[in-house]
Amino acid sequence: MWKYVAIVTLCAALAPAGMVVAEDRQFTVVNIEYEGSKIWVPSTLVVHKGDKVKIKLINNVKSDPNQHGFAIPALNVTAVVDRGEPKEVEFVADKVGIFPTICQLHPAHVGGQLVVLP
Amino acid sequence: MWKYVAIVTLCAALAPAGMVVAEDRQFTVVNIEYEGSKIWVPSTLVVHKGDKVKIKLINNVKSDPNQHGFAIPALNVTAVVDRGEPKEVEFVADKVGIFPTICQLHPAHVGGQLVVLP
Amino acid sequence: MWKYVAIVTLCAALAPAGMVVAEDRQFTVVNIEYEGSKIWVPSTLVVHKGDKVKIKLINNVKSDPNQHGFAIPALNVTAVVDRGEPKEVEFVADKVGIFPTICQLHPAHVGGQLVVLP
Repeated sequence: MWKYVAIVTLCAALAPAGMVVAEDRQFTVVNIEYEGSKIWVPSTLVVHKGDKVKIKLINNVKSDPNQHGFAIPALNVTAVVDRGEPKEVEFVADKVGIFPTICQLHPAHVGGQLVVLP
Repeated sequence: MWKYVAIVTLCAALAPAGMVVAEDRQFTVVNIEYEGSKIWVPSTLVVHKGDKVKIKLINNVKSDPNQHGFAIPALNVTAVVDRGEPKEVEFVADKVGIFPTICQLHPAHVGGQLVVLP
Repeated sequence: MWKYVAIVTLCAALAPAGMVVAEDRQFTVVNIEYEGSKIWVPSTLVVHKGDKVKIKLINNVKSDPNQHGFAIPALNVTAVVDRGEPKEVEFVADKVGIFPTICQLHPAHVGGQLVVLP
């Protein structure tokens, strides 16, 4: 019996901190342009698995075209954001991983990452 | 006995890499403005639990007001940074989690995250 | 025997999700200047241990000097990027940790982080 207790304790001590309660995570992300490069900032968004994620997307880039995309293909998230018309996307981060965020309209744009921790 | 050894080995193999020694982590973070949106960059800061964190905050935004805030409410970190007068905050990241960073003076500003890994 | 099964199950349940297959991770990172501060964005890059990482570095900063550095000392990554001449670095993220990224030519520039998860 003491062995069992010892092993349970050991495993618990070694376990990740990850018994995490799902939370609502809200972000605002802004498209900026610098010397021809366009990038959404913050570029890196971090959440826990199970979190309900809401991202407000703002595109105030003055140069044409007036639409930019924001997509997380791995999680089936996609939005087109018109200049001056913020848009929100909502999704549940239902799998752990490191997932690229891209502009699906202009693949040359600088991408970012959604990191889903356990 | 062999069972005990096998189980200890198993648990160790499954354990997170996280037996991490606390470190000093130093950052410089700059407030930028783009088409009306203000944001501290880098927006995402990553540390380990126990790390002593020092953040130098630079506010060179030209538009009024001349003060911007930087706060991590979950860790009781708060600072007001005057234009042209960098300020440092120091704290120990004493709990694991994903914590929003905000401008406590202007909630509409774009926020960021402090990620404290185990 | 049932004890052994119970313990294996327990350990597995507590294990990190981290039995991760190495991937190719590609980034584009752009040097921007804002009111005298220079910073590579995205500033935070996240990968898994074992990933093959390729970073395309773009320096379109107009002010002199016309060269900026990008280095991850902990992983022996270093590059000098001329204005207007993108450069690529490739490396394998062969250890877990949180590693500063710097401009090795101008230590005053704002740095970033490469985060290597297990």
